[in-house]
Amino acid sequence: MSAPKGTNVTFEDLETPAPLVDLAIVDANLKRMQDYCDSHGIRLRPHIKTHKSIAMAKRQLALGAHGITCQKLGEAEVMADAGIDDILISYPLVGKAKRLAALAARVKMTVAIDSEQALTTAAEAAASAGHTIGVLVEFDSGAKRTGVVRVEDALALARKIAETPHLTFAGLMTYPANENTVAFVNAARAAFDDAGIAIPMVSGGGTPDAFSVHELGVIDELRVGTYIYNDRMMIGAGHASLADCAFDVIATVVSRPEENRAIIDAGSKSLTSDPAGKGGPGHGLIRAYPDTVIDRLSEEHGMVDLTHSTAKPEIGEKLRIVPNHVCPVTNLHDAIWVEADGEISEWPVDARGLTR
Amino acid sequence: MSAPKGTNVTFEDLETPAPLVDLAIVDANLKRMQDYCDSHGIRLRPHIKTHKSIAMAKRQLALGAHGITCQKLGEAEVMADAGIDDILISYPLVGKAKRLAALAARVKMTVAIDSEQALTTAAEAAASAGHTIGVLVEFDSGAKRTGVVRVEDALALARKIAETPHLTFAGLMTYPANENTVAFVNAARAAFDDAGIAIPMVSGGGTPDAFSVHELGVIDELRVGTYIYNDRMMIGAGHASLADCAFDVIATVVSRPEENRAIIDAGSKSLTSDPAGKGGPGHGLIRAYPDTVIDRLSEEHGMVDLTHSTAKPEIGEKLRIVPNHVCPVTNLHDAIWVEADGEISEWPVDARGLTR
Repeated sequence: MSAPKGTNVTFEDLETPAPLVDLAIVDANLKRMQDYCDSHGIRLRPHIKTHKSIAMAKRQLALGAHGITCQKLGEAEVMADAGIDDILISYPLVGKAKRLAALAARVKMTVAIDSEQALTTAAEAAASAGHTIGVLVEFDSGAKRTGVVRVEDALALARKIAETPHLTFAGLMTYPANENTVAFVNAARAAFDDAGIAIPMVSGGGTPDAFSVHELGVIDELRVGTYIYNDRMMIGAGHASLADCAFDVIATVVSRPEENRAIIDAGSKSLTSDPAGKGGPGHGLIRAYPDTVIDRLSEEHGMVDLTHSTAKPEIGEKLRIVPNHVCPVTNLHDAIWVEADGEISEWPVDARGLTR
Repeated sequence: MSAPKGTNVTFEDLETPAPLVDLAIVDANLKRMQDYCDSHGIRLRPHIKTHKSIAMAKRQLALGAHGITCQKLGEAEVMADAGIDDILISYPLVGKAKRLAALAARVKMTVAIDSEQALTTAAEAAASAGHTIGVLVEFDSGAKRTGVVRVEDALALARKIAETPHLTFAGLMTYPANENTVAFVNAARAAFDDAGIAIPMVSGGGTPDAFSVHELGVIDELRVGTYIYNDRMMIGAGHASLADCAFDVIATVVSRPEENRAIIDAGSKSLTSDPAGKGGPGHGLIRAYPDTVIDRLSEEHGMVDLTHSTAKPEIGEKLRIVPNHVCPVTNLHDAIWVEADGEISEWPVDARGLTR
């Protein structure tokens, strides 16, 4: 797999704050998930929201992924431009039919809906494109986010999809995949059977419990994003170990005003304010000083409490920091540095900031 | 003041999520702060970290601002490229002398330091550029961020600055300006007098208490950023009212899975996870539905609790949302939409993502 070309730098020359990705860990994470899915007969459809990178998406496809998942049209447009031709938008599109039509005219599109308004968007887009769009009905498995909460609503939407020209009912979708998923799917199967509507497949998402979705027995397709890089949240969730975390933010100590306080040049504009949950306290883990805590952030400052660390970093020292939640961190940076075979080169974050 | 040209759109056509700025409120906020500073003989040096926009910086300068403040070299480079010729980097630069030298060779540069390492960077840059760099010594007024904590350390650094070729001791700097600032400055004046070193000026920062800094009696220069747009934090701090908030994120309701839950298409990748502090609960204020609470965010979803609102937004409805903390929100978006005289046009966020 060829990599995007970028200026090569050494770690010493890297200007901070800078995201640095270990490609060997990425590849191991990708392979582990693909092998898992293959061994259980589950189709893997990686979510690109984590990396927003054409090159990373192509690595996932080269290993056997069955298309990709995007959250927003802007992400899908970038990936379609790059030649990726099977895209699920796992998000209800409302009133953006023209852009969806343009995508459907050139690549295989699937969308998720949970309302008649989102169904109308898909119907308008498919009619305008003159191409079929697959439509999943999203249901709520407890996240209380998007997704219908009642089986009868899922059935009513599926029926309307099936009746709409150029739309195909592609199945059911949820996030996350869990015990509630099983209960909903089983109830849905009974109701859909009675109505004479087949459920082609069930798509479930979420890295934290990815490696046990086969036990649920109802998941045909897995949508996961964070697994490519992992982060402190994934460590806290038991999905990954520190050795599986591929994405660090490199920061420099710029001040040591007191014995037990260091200031780094990465704040909320580099690390985000997202907490790590069970992944630990503070705003990221400093690999070389695991007993320190990045206890406060302002926009460009990270305040590091050194009280419980006998080793104290010096001004000018570069630190590798595992972020709490890598997905919004990627979205802050126009490019990442990728370390492979002892070389460091710059890769674009192609879909950065494309939230529309 | 001419505005950058961009495609004009109507509010109805605006694709969401989208940052929308009311230029009349911006101008009122800028004028209010400039008038305040003028009336108290304080020099205003606006911090561009909030807007990261060349056009906005030029509006501030046109009203009488005395140069600008940047937090990072990348911001300063963009502003210097645009012809802004008096820039303070209110942040300790460590090991980036070459880029600072390139700036000092073409514009009037001032930097803040709090360590010998940062002093060395400034000295190397000034020597390499062959141009004088002004150096402020940052002290800690209680934020426990950067800044020396002892007067004797400030004095030692000032002495070294004065002894270094091409460096000028430009004064003392702190954030925020408060009662501790007064105590430190008074103690410093006594110690510096004894040492025969003049303190040319004192620079203080922070929008929340900006309108009372004259009462401190020691602030010569004011660095403020958030005042241009304001946000829920500034409302909570008593600096602004809702009518002074110029920057909204426009989002669309994309799902209404239950009577009392709406989902909007703005999550942490559009609004950030920053809390509002005393500005109120949740992740932003929906202007038209002030009794709702955006109680949870995922990356592209905002979950809105409608329980305490008799009016409930419908799917497809566009909502104006006042963000909790506008500075990191700006940094998520490559462009803002600016509403002026009934027209909406796109302005670039020129220094977005420039954290190095």
